[in-house]
Order: sequence, then C-alpha cells, then structure tokens
Amino acid sequence: MRFFSDNTGTASPEILAAVAEANRGLARPYGDDDWTLRLDEALSAFFGTQVRAFPVATGTAANSLALATLSPPYGAIFAHQESHIACDECGAPGFFSGGAQLALLPGQHGRLEPATFRAALAARPVDVHGVQPAALSLTQATEVGTVYGAAQIAQLCELAHGRGLRVHMDGARLANALMFLDCPPADITWRAGVDVLSFGATKNGALAAEAVVFFDRALVRDFELRRKRAGHLLSKSRYVAAQLLAYVESGIWKRNAERTNRLAQRIGRAAGAALLHPVEANEVFVKLGAERRQGLRDAGFEFYDWGAEGAGEARFVVSWDQPEADVPALCEALARV
Amino acid sequence: MRFFSDNTGTASPEILAAVAEANRGLARPYGDDDWTLRLDEALSAFFGTQVRAFPVATGTAANSLALATLSPPYGAIFAHQESHIACDECGAPGFFSGGAQLALLPGQHGRLEPATFRAALAARPVDVHGVQPAALSLTQATEVGTVYGAAQIAQLCELAHGRGLRVHMDGARLANALMFLDCPPADITWRAGVDVLSFGATKNGALAAEAVVFFDRALVRDFELRRKRAGHLLSKSRYVAAQLLAYVESGIWKRNAERTNRLAQRIGRAAGAALLHPVEANEVFVKLGAERRQGLRDAGFEFYDWGAEGAGEARFVVSWDQPEADVPALCEALARV
Amino acid sequence: MRFFSDNTGTASPEILAAVAEANRGLARPYGDDDWTLRLDEALSAFFGTQVRAFPVATGTAANSLALATLSPPYGAIFAHQESHIACDECGAPGFFSGGAQLALLPGQHGRLEPATFRAALAARPVDVHGVQPAALSLTQATEVGTVYGAAQIAQLCELAHGRGLRVHMDGARLANALMFLDCPPADITWRAGVDVLSFGATKNGALAAEAVVFFDRALVRDFELRRKRAGHLLSKSRYVAAQLLAYVESGIWKRNAERTNRLAQRIGRAAGAALLHPVEANEVFVKLGAERRQGLRDAGFEFYDWGAEGAGEARFVVSWDQPEADVPALCEALARV
Amino acid sequence: MRFFSDNTGTASPEILAAVAEANRGLARPYGDDDWTLRLDEALSAFFGTQVRAFPVATGTAANSLALATLSPPYGAIFAHQESHIACDECGAPGFFSGGAQLALLPGQHGRLEPATFRAALAARPVDVHGVQPAALSLTQATEVGTVYGAAQIAQLCELAHGRGLRVHMDGARLANALMFLDCPPADITWRAGVDVLSFGATKNGALAAEAVVFFDRALVRDFELRRKRAGHLLSKSRYVAAQLLAYVESGIWKRNAERTNRLAQRIGRAAGAALLHPVEANEVFVKLGAERRQGLRDAGFEFYDWGAEGAGEARFVVSWDQPEADVPALCEALARV
Repeated sequence: MRFFSDNTGTASPEILAAVAEANRGLARPYGDDDWTLRLDEALSAFFGTQVRAFPVATGTAANSLALATLSPPYGAIFAHQESHIACDECGAPGFFSGGAQLALLPGQHGRLEPATFRAALAARPVDVHGVQPAALSLTQATEVGTVYGAAQIAQLCELAHGRGLRVHMDGARLANALMFLDCPPADITWRAGVDVLSFGATKNGALAAEAVVFFDRALVRDFELRRKRAGHLLSKSRYVAAQLLAYVESGIWKRNAERTNRLAQRIGRAAGAALLHPVEANEVFVKLGAERRQGLRDAGFEFYDWGAEGAGEARFVVSWDQPEADVPALCEALARV
Repeated sequence: MRFFSDNTGTASPEILAAVAEANRGLARPYGDDDWTLRLDEALSAFFGTQVRAFPVATGTAANSLALATLSPPYGAIFAHQESHIACDECGAPGFFSGGAQLALLPGQHGRLEPATFRAALAARPVDVHGVQPAALSLTQATEVGTVYGAAQIAQLCELAHGRGLRVHMDGARLANALMFLDCPPADITWRAGVDVLSFGATKNGALAAEAVVFFDRALVRDFELRRKRAGHLLSKSRYVAAQLLAYVESGIWKRNAERTNRLAQRIGRAAGAALLHPVEANEVFVKLGAERRQGLRDAGFEFYDWGAEGAGEARFVVSWDQPEADVPALCEALARV
Repeated sequence: MRFFSDNTGTASPEILAAVAEANRGLARPYGDDDWTLRLDEALSAFFGTQVRAFPVATGTAANSLALATLSPPYGAIFAHQESHIACDECGAPGFFSGGAQLALLPGQHGRLEPATFRAALAARPVDVHGVQPAALSLTQATEVGTVYGAAQIAQLCELAHGRGLRVHMDGARLANALMFLDCPPADITWRAGVDVLSFGATKNGALAAEAVVFFDRALVRDFELRRKRAGHLLSKSRYVAAQLLAYVESGIWKRNAERTNRLAQRIGRAAGAALLHPVEANEVFVKLGAERRQGLRDAGFEFYDWGAEGAGEARFVVSWDQPEADVPALCEALARV
Repeated sequence: MRFFSDNTGTASPEILAAVAEANRGLARPYGDDDWTLRLDEALSAFFGTQVRAFPVATGTAANSLALATLSPPYGAIFAHQESHIACDECGAPGFFSGGAQLALLPGQHGRLEPATFRAALAARPVDVHGVQPAALSLTQATEVGTVYGAAQIAQLCELAHGRGLRVHMDGARLANALMFLDCPPADITWRAGVDVLSFGATKNGALAAEAVVFFDRALVRDFELRRKRAGHLLSKSRYVAAQLLAYVESGIWKRNAERTNRLAQRIGRAAGAALLHPVEANEVFVKLGAERRQGLRDAGFEFYDWGAEGAGEARFVVSWDQPEADVPALCEALARV
C-alpha cells in the first residue's frame, strides 16, 4: 500500500482521453496550436480574471522559471525553510535565476508568518553588500499539508509589495487548498496579491502538466525566453495544454482533490495525538518513533521518513487513485501502533 | 498542407497505447518505476553496448544537459554554425553550462569537416586567456537534412578525443540517419567515438520523449543532478519512459523514419535543380525565390522560410503522419513553379 | 574618530615602498613576472608547507573563486549564518559557483559548532532532490571578532572531510587570529584540514591584496581559469604580488595585527558588561541601546550599527593606523555612557 | 627588448604619486571616499557630459560588467570575431551575463562594418528560438591597432539603437584612438551613440585602473550590484580612483598615448610591405614568416606570435615606458630581415 507521494498516481481517465483527443492532424508546434492557444481563456475563466498561462512539464520548472522572472541574479527570494524550492529542487531557483539567494524563514506548520517576514525584511540593509529582496514565494497547500487562509496570504503579499517584492505561489497542490477553503481560486491568488502562480496538475491526476499563470502580464516576455532557453517549451505543446484544459474544465481538479483531502483527514483522525500538523490537504505527518515506523513497513505500508534523522516521523500522502481499501487499512494500523 | 516541421505531427498509436498501458497502479516516482528502470536494458540492446539512458521531455533539454555534463563553464563547445544548439535553443548551452562559449564552424551541407575542425583546434592557444576546448557536438541527421557517414564521425571524434574533448551527438533525427545509412546504431554512435547522445523520439512519433544516452558512464552522476536541478526529472517518469520503450521496441522508429525519408526524397527529386542540399533524411531545402515561394503559399502549402532574408529559400519537412496526398501535391507544385 | 572598519585604513609604508620598488622595467604580464612567480615560495615558507598562491584584489573575489572551485553548481556550502559570504558579498558565492546554495547554520559568538554541523550534514538526504554537500567555509577570525582554536577547526574539518566536503577558510583577518592564538599559521590552516584559504592583507595594511592559497594543489587549474574568466587576473600582477610579499616578509602582518588586537581589547574592557562577544581580534561589538549609540555619534565617533533594527548594537573596528588618541577617547566615552 | 604588450609597462610616476598622496587618514570604504566621489565630476569634465563612472581593477571586469548590464542571459552580443571579449577573456561575457551568446562578425582590419552588422541583425528572427539581439560591443582602438572614425561609430550605433540594442565600447586603448583622431573624447563615445564605455588606464600608465563610464545613467544601479557581487568593488576604493583622477587630470593619458602611437608608427614604417594593418595606435602586426620571426627572437626581441599557426605573423606593442633605444633597434632589425 503506497503512500509515498501523490506522484505515484496514474493519470485520470479524463486526462488520457484529452491527450488522445488532441492526437489529430498536423498542428503548429511550440504553442501555436489550438489547445495551447485556448489555455489563456480557460485559465482566465478559472481564475476570474485575465491571465496569461504557459504549460510546462514539471513543478520544478514552473517554480524556478517563475522565480527567475521575478528576481535578478542578485536577488533574495524569501520562502519557508521547509519549502519545496528550498529542499527538493536541487537548487533550481539558484540555477534558473543565475544565483539568487534563498532567504529561508521558519514558521509553524509550514506557514510563513507575517511578523517573521516583516522582521526579516527589516533586517536587510539597502546597500549593495547584501542580496536585494526581490520575491516572496508561498506554498499553497504548504509542504506539510496545511493551508493559508486568504487573509494570511493577503497580509504577506502586502508586506512584500510594500517593499517592492513580487509574489510567487507554488501551487503544486492548489486544488487541495481550494477544496479545503471552499473558496474561488481568485481569493487565494491574484485577489490576495499573488503575481505569478505555479498551478500544478500532475500530482492531482495529470500525466505531466503544470501551468505558470501570470496575473502580472508585464513579466510574460522574459518568461517565454527563459522557458525556451531552459528546454521547457514543448514542441508538441498541444499534449500538455490538452491536459491542463481537461484538468480545469472537466472538474477533475475538484473531484480528485476532494477525495484525497477526505481520505487524508480520515488518516489524520486515526493518527490522533501523534499527528504533527493539521490535515488540510492530502498529506498526513505523524510522529511514530522508529519502532512503530518499522512496524508499519512490515505490515506492507510504503511511505517516506520525514524530519531529522532519529525523529521517527513519517509522511503519508494520498493519491487521487489511492485504492479505496488502503486508507482504512492504514487507519487501523495507525490506531493499533 | 503542413510541411512546417516534424514537430507538427501527432503521436503514433503505439506510443499512445504504451502510455495508456503504463497507466496502471501506484508507481514509485522520479524514475524508480518499472518502465524507467527498464530503459537502460532496452537502449543497451538497441545500441549493442551497455549504456545508461535518461528520459527527458525536449530535445533542448537533452542537448544542453548533455553538453553541460561535458563542458566546464569556461569551456568551448565546437559545433556547426547552423546547428540547432547554436540557432534554435535560445542560448540553452550557455545557460545549462554556466556560460560555455560556442565555437561555431562552417561546413558544406550542414556537416562539420575534419580539416576545419582540426584547424580550429590548432588555432586555440592553451593559456588561460581563451575558453578551453571541451566538447564537440555533431548533429545526425544534420540541420539541413544531410547525414554523416560512420567514417566521417569517427574521424571527427578522433580529432576531438586527441585533444581531450568529449563528443556529443544531437540525434533529434537519428532514426532518419540510421534509415538512410542502413547501419546498426552502434556504427554512428559509440563505435565511432560518441560519448553522449541525445536520442530523439518526439519528431518521429512520440508525444514528448528524448533519451540522453551515455556511452561514457562516468558522466552519469553529474548529469542526474543537473537534470533534477533544471526541472527535467519528471515525477511520473513512467510515461516518458514508456514512450521510449515503445519507440525502440515496437519498430516505429524504423517504420516512421523509413516513410518520412522516402517521401522527402520524392520531394527532393521534384525540386530538381532548385534543391539546396542532398536529401538524406526527412527535410528538403529548396531555392525558390520570393515569388514562387509566395505562389506555393497561395496554393495552400505551409512551410518555413530559410536562410538569409531575401535568399528566397524554403524548408519542407515531412512528418511521420503526413497525409499521403500532401506529397504528390507538393511535388507537382514544385515542378510547376 | 573612525571605527567603521579596518577598510578605512591606509596602506602601510612598507606596502607602498614595495609597490614603488616593483615599478621598474618591463615585466611579463598576467603573473609571469618575478614578483608573482616568487609568491608560491614566500607563502610556502609562511605556511610551512608547499602551497600554490594566487593574488587577487578583493576578499569577495578570493572567497568566491575559492568556493566555486570547491562546489559544483548543485552543491551546498555550509557556513555560519552571519558569515561574510552569506551577508556581505551580494550573493557572490552563488554567482561564481553557478548557483550553489548556502546552507547557513547558527553558532554562538560567530563560530560554527561541530554538533550543529554534524546534525546539518546528517539531515541532508543523499538523493538527487537536494543540493549536494560540497564545502564548508569557516571564517577566522569570525565576523564578530572571535577566533576558532586549532582543535575546533580540526574537528570541523574532520567532519567535513568525512562526508567528502572540502574546507575553505575566509582569512580576511587571519593575521589577527594568528596573533591572538600565538601559533604557527600551519596550525589553524592545512594542519587542521583547511584545503583552500583566502588570506587577507587589505584590511591589515595592504592597498588591495589578498592571496588565495591552495593546500590541495589539484584544484589549481580550475581556479586559474575561473579567476581569468571573472576578471580577477591582474595584467600588471607584480603590483599586487609585491604587496603580498611585503606583507608576509616584512613582518607587518604581525606588527599591525598585534596593534589592532591590543587596542580592541582595551575597548572591549571599557565596554564592560555591554560587550556582546569576547574580543579576540580587532573588532568590538557592544550593546548600547539607541540613545547611548546616538550619544557616541554626537561625541564624534563613527561606527556601524549592528544586528537587528532596534537592537541598539554597535560595531567598532580598529584599523592598523588608528590614531593613537582615538582609542582612549572611545574607552572613556564607552565607560561614561 | 620587450614588445609583448603594453601590460608589461610600469606605472607612470604621476600615478604612483597619486596613490601615495591618497594614502592619508582613515577614509570611508567601498567608494564613499573623497577620491571616488570626485570621479563622476572628473570624468564628466573629460567627456564633456554628465556621466557616472566606476573604478574597477581590470579590463575584463570593466567589459563584462558593462555587457552584463546591457544584455539579459538570453541576449546576443555582437562583436568583432577578433575582439578581446571574444578571444582573450576566457568567456567572461558569458559568465557575467549568465550565458549571453556572442554573435561574432568578421571585418577588415579589426573593424566591424555597418553592412555586415546590418545583415547579421536582419538574419536574426524575432521568435523565442534564438538569442535576442541585446548589445553591440565595439573596440576602440581595435584589437589590431586600428581606429574607428567618429562617423563609422555613429553609423554602427544607429543601426544598433534602431533595433533596440545598447552599445558598449571597449576602450582599453581609448587614449591611443583619441590621439590618432585628435578629437574630443565626446566625438567617439556618447555623441556617436555609445551607452557604456570601458575606459582603460592600465595599459597606458596606471597600476591597475579602468573606469566603467555610463552615458546612459539608468543602468547604474544594476551595474553597482553586479560589480559588488563579482568582487570588483574595492574596499579601499580611493587608491584606484586616485589613479583614474591622475590619469585624466595630469594629462598623462595624452602624453603616454602620444609617445606609444608615435613609436609604433616608426615600427610600422620599418615593416614596410610586411605590415598587416594600418598603424593607428600602439600596436604593429607584421607578416614575417617563421624563419625571420625566429631571427628576431634570436636577436633579443620579445613579442607574441599572432594569427593562425603557421601564418608567421607577429605582434609588437609599444609600452608607454618603452626604452627609447628599443624602437630604432627593432626598426633596423625589421628592415634587415
């Protein structure tokens, strides 16, 4: 029973159908095809404002290209110290930006806190000796499966904009956050102040499809050149665009996120006092200790260790196509250990 | 009738079937799945030697990641002045390598010539003032649809290795070259001295799949970290691996390349004296003049202008799924104009 | 009375004399002159082992070139969170290395602690998702004017080497550390495990001269190319080499550091309980509060604020040519406020 | 008798005197000293317009920092194929800019020609696949000792500006060009359309001093951060500023250039028909053949080989402090062989 990651999941049937449907006729390459050209419209409808949207194949590409568009090489990018861009992308933001420095901040349950961010900004001198504050990157849902409220995001964005920084949101699991908050996508993105969004579909049912969504459209040209240069402009762009269209238009973003959130909450309840963070998306972090962790593995559960060595923590992630029986089995096992 | 590029093509049914077939069950992400793990074996069989092979989604990624593995930031990468890496990747080799400099050389019909390369190497001083010769990049088939013979490749590789350079081959259209030469893949790759190959499938029937194939396996670790860092390690790696497995194992690489080569040669014959380069792959370059070029467009043919402004040249590329009637129509039109 | 920084100082007369002495005859450029060629020998004598030494004009260049030689673009460089490379070089290590990520650690009084470093290393997974531990950078004397003992350095180096990391030392104020410890240079550099040293002379009496000293000579070729490429190979290299020769051979490194350490300690004693860190070099950090800080300024003392906004901290640095009367004046003022 | 390069020269007595004169009292570091603060005014007077000027220690730094300010990472920088930035800086423009690509053009006697540049611009498509034309870099005097007239520069700048490119001038030997043309500095810089100038002093009598001069002052902030980040902001900035002040204010730029130009022309005349390029600065290129080249070496002349291996060419450069007897001796030897 695999709880490694939502990356273990397959593609939703609707996604595969959309790819097959796009597989007709000779189409102009590099995004001049009918599917890619329709993406702006579809995502503008989804977000309730005029956007420019660009498909890429990975979340790392989406995040790093967005950040490189926001930060000069001598910029500082503020982010949570456990964020994906800091820990799981092999330094991609530094690569894409030409060496921008991450300014990593702590924050309970994976969320940056306005007071911490304000203090960090205040501590930065404005002379040429330090890197220049350039961007804030927020993760929604966070790396530990919690969710920012719209007001929290707005407050962080306001602080950022007040100092001239732009705001990026890593929305690899945005669908899960939206389902948890039950709010329109606008509320936690552009309306709260987000300038560029990495809008993930891969973890929630696509084959390989993420959209970089620009609410600030002045940044688009720079992005397009960086994307090409980084090998992230797909020649047969229609296939990744078709996935994104199906993702937002068929409602699978909602259906899949609803299911994974619901199942994760069941697991969270089963974890009881061992639960490390509120379960607000499809991830559950549990403090088990080394022995019980091994016990779960012996019982056939697959998952990643988390946190510092010896902390005995574990992460369980529910995939959109998680077999139905896996979750009660895990709940029972957690209750037992 | 579209002759823009083989990128306009769809995916072969075998490719789509392979993707659908891979769409079962939760699989370990990031290349630890059964499909990706089988890639080394499948490509080792294809090339007749033990290789390490890594899937990526674009040719630009394949080329630039390979070159960054071969060249330090202060390296010189020798290539033909019309090569894809020089003209069509928005400076990707410079980006991935941290600033390596392309040393571009002329050569008739898109092919580098040993004498030119030897002279260019000889003209490089060995002191610290110039960039350091690091890699040779060959394109097979070339950017103008010609093909290197095995002996020519071997001679260029020998020159390169003799000065301590490594050799990369951009094989975006390797299948076309293999069909033209009717030789085993080994003959024009590792046996001739190629160290790393970008082995393209996208243009010849895949959705989005290229393999970076290492004949020199010492380079692999560096490559893997660069790939991750560049956002080119796909989380659901199985889908791109499945395409590559189908590509080499089902024989579509051969079937598709055979058809496009054959049709291109018909077009080439129709072009007659206006033909600019021998037709050895699936591309045809024709000197038309501005007026006849417009005439073809008015008659419903779509294609790219080529060469310098005012040269009146045109490029026609045959896709694997080019409608059968397109080619005789183009031949007739070319004969007419 | 200026206590801003030891960068406010002039050049020692011996340094100017050496520059004037080097100003004779046409000399081969780019380091092939008699002065630069003698540098290896002079610094080998100074450090008591065979070294390769290269002159550059700034500490930022010395540090970043050294680190770029030690870390791949996907490397992690461990350093104290208040180190100069982290706070005062505008992201230079990220620039020179092509995007390496700083892994910043806390540590009392500016010193990294073995336990903290060991834990940080242990927390790094070995997969491709995170940056790869590549280098440890120690600052001696530290950014807050304290000094590592030889045993502490050896312990940190051993941890680093045990995980395959190389060790860099930022010795912008190495002379001050040597005077404090009263030990041979070898003891706190190569003998303790340091692989590459930035050996500063500028702050301690040179015009503009730092040596990058390689104890691990395998790294030299890569360094030389990076130095040239970064514009840090001076064409008239003799003038910076002459400064470094005079610095180590005339004994001014010792004389100047002895004086600045001694005067700083007087200031430290005057600061009494307000002293923030032990005074072991030529810097004194004092907690004054905003009001007394202003009082000192009104009394004619010039110095930098330090620490977080509102913390009311101040830094006083003694220059090698600090007017004799400045120090008793400051001591008296500190005692008074 | 050394004719290697003008980098073999010493520093003019006026330069050393200025350094000694600046060696008084504690001065604010990093360019906030009285000398550096006066630089804008002094160079504004020199160029006859309001400029911002920044001192650095090497020509490579001046050129590459300027170019990085003008070109995005995905930019193309047009330059002569024999320019210093292309051949002698180990890829520095690619490093500083984050991977910009040099677009190298031929041109007789080291000068870019408007027709060639116009054609190269026209051949660049405006799509995302190629690097984007961003900057033109001219060398004055050129790498082969010739000089552009003011009208030629204006024509090239007009072409560049017409396509949205900015213009950089590598003026490592600007003084020699000014003496040859006998015109005000304005005529061949900002008045002709140059946006940023590397104004060299090192080759013509300084220790190590080049000014980056911005006629387009909007670029300054970006430059300042890049300079710091690259380790080219000198802490004791006064010493390099003092050199530049002395260079332009004492008239040594003129006196030294006048002498080296004059002596070079004598050598040029002695070379007769073997002369490869008109002598318009302090460099003389002669076609000698391998045997006569060796003959000159045996006779005690030191110089660099030039051009392709086997071409038998030689370069002679006159330093500002070239011993008076060297030149007649060389002339006689050249006439003899």
